[in-house]
Amino acid sequence: MKCDLQLDELPPPAPVIAALRQARRALLACHEDPDPDCVGSMLALARGLARRGVRVTTVCPDPLSTALLQLPGAESVRAPAGLGEEGPWDTGIVVDCEPARTRDAWPYLASAPVVINIDHHETNDGQVGLVWVEPEAAATGELVFAVLSALPVELDPAMACHLFAALQGDTGSFQFDNTKARTLRLAAHLVELGASPGEISQALYETRELGYVQLTGEVIRTLRRSPDGRIAWVHLTREMVERAGLRDSEVEGFVRYPRMIRGVEVALLFRETSDGRVRVSLRSRGRVDVSQLATRLGGGGHMRASGCTLAATLPEAEARVIALVSEALRDGSLPRGEEHAPDLGLSQSDQAIRADLS
Amino acid sequence: MKCDLQLDELPPPAPVIAALRQARRALLACHEDPDPDCVGSMLALARGLARRGVRVTTVCPDPLSTALLQLPGAESVRAPAGLGEEGPWDTGIVVDCEPARTRDAWPYLASAPVVINIDHHETNDGQVGLVWVEPEAAATGELVFAVLSALPVELDPAMACHLFAALQGDTGSFQFDNTKARTLRLAAHLVELGASPGEISQALYETRELGYVQLTGEVIRTLRRSPDGRIAWVHLTREMVERAGLRDSEVEGFVRYPRMIRGVEVALLFRETSDGRVRVSLRSRGRVDVSQLATRLGGGGHMRASGCTLAATLPEAEARVIALVSEALRDGSLPRGEEHAPDLGLSQSDQAIRADLS
Repeated sequence: MKCDLQLDELPPPAPVIAALRQARRALLACHEDPDPDCVGSMLALARGLARRGVRVTTVCPDPLSTALLQLPGAESVRAPAGLGEEGPWDTGIVVDCEPARTRDAWPYLASAPVVINIDHHETNDGQVGLVWVEPEAAATGELVFAVLSALPVELDPAMACHLFAALQGDTGSFQFDNTKARTLRLAAHLVELGASPGEISQALYETRELGYVQLTGEVIRTLRRSPDGRIAWVHLTREMVERAGLRDSEVEGFVRYPRMIRGVEVALLFRETSDGRVRVSLRSRGRVDVSQLATRLGGGGHMRASGCTLAATLPEAEARVIALVSEALRDGSLPRGEEHAPDLGLSQSDQAIRADLS
Repeated sequence: MKCDLQLDELPPPAPVIAALRQARRALLACHEDPDPDCVGSMLALARGLARRGVRVTTVCPDPLSTALLQLPGAESVRAPAGLGEEGPWDTGIVVDCEPARTRDAWPYLASAPVVINIDHHETNDGQVGLVWVEPEAAATGELVFAVLSALPVELDPAMACHLFAALQGDTGSFQFDNTKARTLRLAAHLVELGASPGEISQALYETRELGYVQLTGEVIRTLRRSPDGRIAWVHLTREMVERAGLRDSEVEGFVRYPRMIRGVEVALLFRETSDGRVRVSLRSRGRVDVSQLATRLGGGGHMRASGCTLAATLPEAEARVIALVSEALRDGSLPRGEEHAPDLGLSQSDQAIRADLS
């Protein structure tokens, strides 16, 4: 049996490839609140360009977590402060987000004559420079793989590791419904090129401080549900984060606890940020599109996973967002997808075969 | 680019296939404390045999969790009680374990003239009937796929779903280091045949009772570590499980919390069982082989994930096992694998390229 990698399924726009081939000094940036997809995509592309002789600088507006710092080359990722001394650049590249989410890095990127934006978020409206926004991709890592193939650059084990981490990160380790056969086939290909699923997962997901695990227990104690059980949420105060001895970049993943409860349609995590605002993570179990809600609140993301940041206290943010979500669920103003429980692909004609399994 | 599914990598023994082709009335059993790999493998094989006209009965010594009951055909899985009335069978098939772990189902299986045992646990010593133990396989689901291909039976969406769940279950959603390119490529193939990663994951991993999430917080509060930080463990008492309103089959997954702590080499979960014993789950982060320890305690499993059941009180079991693990770590009697932190596949020659990413 043969299975193509179907590289032509997501072809990069020719102008993007042409511009990348012209680059000599490139600045690459990923988004605030960095995750494996943005950092892995940025590092793979930076390394690919470096292999072609481009002088590259990588930047992230927030510090990388201990976990993300284990990705090859991650220690070279710069903070925006003092970045100007490294320039000028002929090419600015924004990966996995709209330019605004690169925050303080954006002026440096915008100073380059050519700006390229590669992203898979459907809420990215693609207003700046050469844009490739492809919501069909499970992760920006899929797009960077297509770009590297088109340049072309041969992938080495480090790039395979970057891109595997990117795919894994944005598919919830191949559990979200953005996981296509294409995604898994690319993951298999990356393993053949040297990515080690065990080592990457251990570094990214299975290496936490004691304080993280203890904080998990504490976050679960803040769990609340709406009276009808369709909304559930947890929160993190500054005090909880500081008592656990963790940096902001290290407190992720907690939204999975309200999300996994049977009957919950929208799960939320509220986290006080160090600048006195509240970061809200919204997750849908598939019936409603939370990206619309996040966009209304000044954020964005995907149908099932979005986020926004509010200038409010924690109780204000909770009250406001829960009211909005309740209202949207009640009046049906959030578009609905499947109305039924997952049936795991079984059709009615399977009943006959089921009956055989007595 | 072409990539073969490499079906010939794990070829089933001819006598096993020949015996399955002879079967007319088959009894299939999986192990106590059932998981997605044993149930998914058993259901896929049962369905495949049923498609070939075999009359099949499936049995599990313990009740299936609400999550596992969502797998197609899972509602037909029988308890051993009263099973005799369904016989006799010409073929008994034990899937994903040695015969002893089918407990009360074993006499019924053993009553068949032909007994087949298909498993990937290296601690299965294969003493009964026609045996195919293949520790190279990430999951027994890989072996069942090979068997179905050899019979041959064409996979339908339900079987694809069973086998995807099996792979996902035993690879920790493609995070453990038993995840090979082959495993991911088979997963991609199963998605093409109709398995939905999103629906399967939501059913198996993201649908929990409120009590489960609350119990998670409570289990984390029982977290303890050895003075050197190399061993960490949590426990569940009967009272905790009952207060959460959960059945035994619904309290799994908690060993991940001690396991994820930085510096921990062996993580353990101790759970009081309903028959007054203590079930111990052992996890290694790769430096030591916990299957040897589990075997010494009358259990078995894999190098990184094993289990055993002790006739002891919870404090006795904790004291005894922690002492054994400490001793084994101290005197190095558990074989060691890699001694270094995961380097994510980077070789020293990559330093030059790293330096470019300034």
